[in-house]
Amino acid sequence: MKIATIKGEGADGVLGVVSDDLTSIQSCSAATLQVALDGTGFELGEGQQAFDQAECLSPLPRAYQFLDGSAYVNHVELVRRARGAKMPDSFWTDPLMYQGCSDSFLNPSDDIVGDPAWGIDFEAEVAVITGHVRMGASRDEAAAAIKLVMLCNDISLRNLIPGELAKGFGFVQSKPPCAFSPVAVTPDALPGWDGGKLHGVVKVDLNGQPFGRSDAGVDMTFDFPTLIAHAAKTRPLAAGTIIGSGTVSNKLDGGPGKPVDQGGAGYSCIAEQRMVETILDGAPKTPFLQPGDHVKIWMEDDTGQSIFGEISQTVRAL
Amino acid sequence: MKIATIKGEGADGVLGVVSDDLTSIQSCSAATLQVALDGTGFELGEGQQAFDQAECLSPLPRAYQFLDGSAYVNHVELVRRARGAKMPDSFWTDPLMYQGCSDSFLNPSDDIVGDPAWGIDFEAEVAVITGHVRMGASRDEAAAAIKLVMLCNDISLRNLIPGELAKGFGFVQSKPPCAFSPVAVTPDALPGWDGGKLHGVVKVDLNGQPFGRSDAGVDMTFDFPTLIAHAAKTRPLAAGTIIGSGTVSNKLDGGPGKPVDQGGAGYSCIAEQRMVETILDGAPKTPFLQPGDHVKIWMEDDTGQSIFGEISQTVRAL
Repeated sequence: MKIATIKGEGADGVLGVVSDDLTSIQSCSAATLQVALDGTGFELGEGQQAFDQAECLSPLPRAYQFLDGSAYVNHVELVRRARGAKMPDSFWTDPLMYQGCSDSFLNPSDDIVGDPAWGIDFEAEVAVITGHVRMGASRDEAAAAIKLVMLCNDISLRNLIPGELAKGFGFVQSKPPCAFSPVAVTPDALPGWDGGKLHGVVKVDLNGQPFGRSDAGVDMTFDFPTLIAHAAKTRPLAAGTIIGSGTVSNKLDGGPGKPVDQGGAGYSCIAEQRMVETILDGAPKTPFLQPGDHVKIWMEDDTGQSIFGEISQTVRAL
Repeated sequence: MKIATIKGEGADGVLGVVSDDLTSIQSCSAATLQVALDGTGFELGEGQQAFDQAECLSPLPRAYQFLDGSAYVNHVELVRRARGAKMPDSFWTDPLMYQGCSDSFLNPSDDIVGDPAWGIDFEAEVAVITGHVRMGASRDEAAAAIKLVMLCNDISLRNLIPGELAKGFGFVQSKPPCAFSPVAVTPDALPGWDGGKLHGVVKVDLNGQPFGRSDAGVDMTFDFPTLIAHAAKTRPLAAGTIIGSGTVSNKLDGGPGKPVDQGGAGYSCIAEQRMVETILDGAPKTPFLQPGDHVKIWMEDDTGQSIFGEISQTVRAL
């Protein structure tokens, strides 16, 4: 089943069930996705109408919890190298995860508003929404709690990150609200879902040109059940918790890959491409996002049909 | 005005208005505090009844955002020294703040459940609930957005903190859900509120003995409007955002103070007392919380009347 939240009177919008081909949306018994996750579930109602992605909020327009992992350790290593920092070996066995901002997500087609001096970057990720998870849940319990899968643009302010990381308290100013795909999909309706990971290419275009074509099912060191169990070690997770994968990133021949225009899978954020440019040319040449830049993130099935709809955002100066 | 949320059918409980002396509660027009903060506000309804703190949830039983500062820099310096870490001078001018867990707060009288090997500690704090705050809000706008004030027990798992801090991504496993006072109070009803800080002694008893008597209005390096403006630099804050002060901590003659039984104001967490024991005696002697330990946190007005009710929690092994 595919669901979306369309604009309504309140901050939580109106929940609907979307056709597999994303052409129509049907009302349902639960007013909002949070209400459905809290326990009412939902049944299909009447009133089918044309589905317009531009009318969508993020599936959970606001959430009580967003925990973002860094499951593609390749990405972490590259970004750290870009900052001149070495990555501890423990990062290959102990998941990195931060508590993210979840009080008001951007809509999938909202502008990204910020000061270009902050170093605005996108990060294409896969994310899941969970039901309730008890404290100390096993990996199997965590897997069973995954209710919905979606894509995420985790917006990052690169020039503010080093200062915040040095303080040790995680990201506040350097991670503003992110955006999710217009459509979230139940695992049973995703052929690429293997119970722990989503297999499929996360497509990223920057200003209409291919930038990233990494496969989310490759090089994911920690799968979603592992990330959820990590989060639930010392606390329960409320229904409606969002767990992010971190930036999708593929190695190539054991190395950091290549840009798409050089025949590689490219990158799911600008920071990685800048790192590779530094390795190859001694300095980064791709700037972070500037006003007017446009980023599009989506995934297609084998027939070329968009699975989650498109995150499609333009940068606007503060 | 004083408000409380009492147990109801859903996770968000039922909002009520509490008498100044905490003896009665009256129903009101908004079903929940989040609904009221989202814009409906509320009016008093009928149906006054006796107020029982044991029936209370945290005023916001779950919130879309909890950002916890470390405004009492004295506390940060002591805890760092206890871990053998030096505090950077910038901490006196750039607020420390982390994005905290907010998906399901403990009730004010819930047990604290955990593994004693985690090093369970309490932290007595002051917290505020804001209305909507725009991105880039000024200090004055931030001050005007403060809707309610309450107390907080920010539970910390001391033995898990060093590993998470070393990763730089903030607290996930080391900061499980915290608890808030049964009653939240509007600033206009707080004689000790000066527009930015709450003046008054935060009382902490451990197992019935005085442990902390620090004044929340003293040694607060960053006041609430400053913390809110810091949080809102790169993002708006949704209505219902909770901002915590960090552990209340007073210096004494420029030094780290003294335990209550030695004539000092004591400490608002065990970690600080252990640090002072290390300074005085070469080693900490007060253990972190053990099963059966009881912590009580409250504040009284000039007449001895409890302002916010009591956080009253007993530790239970996992």
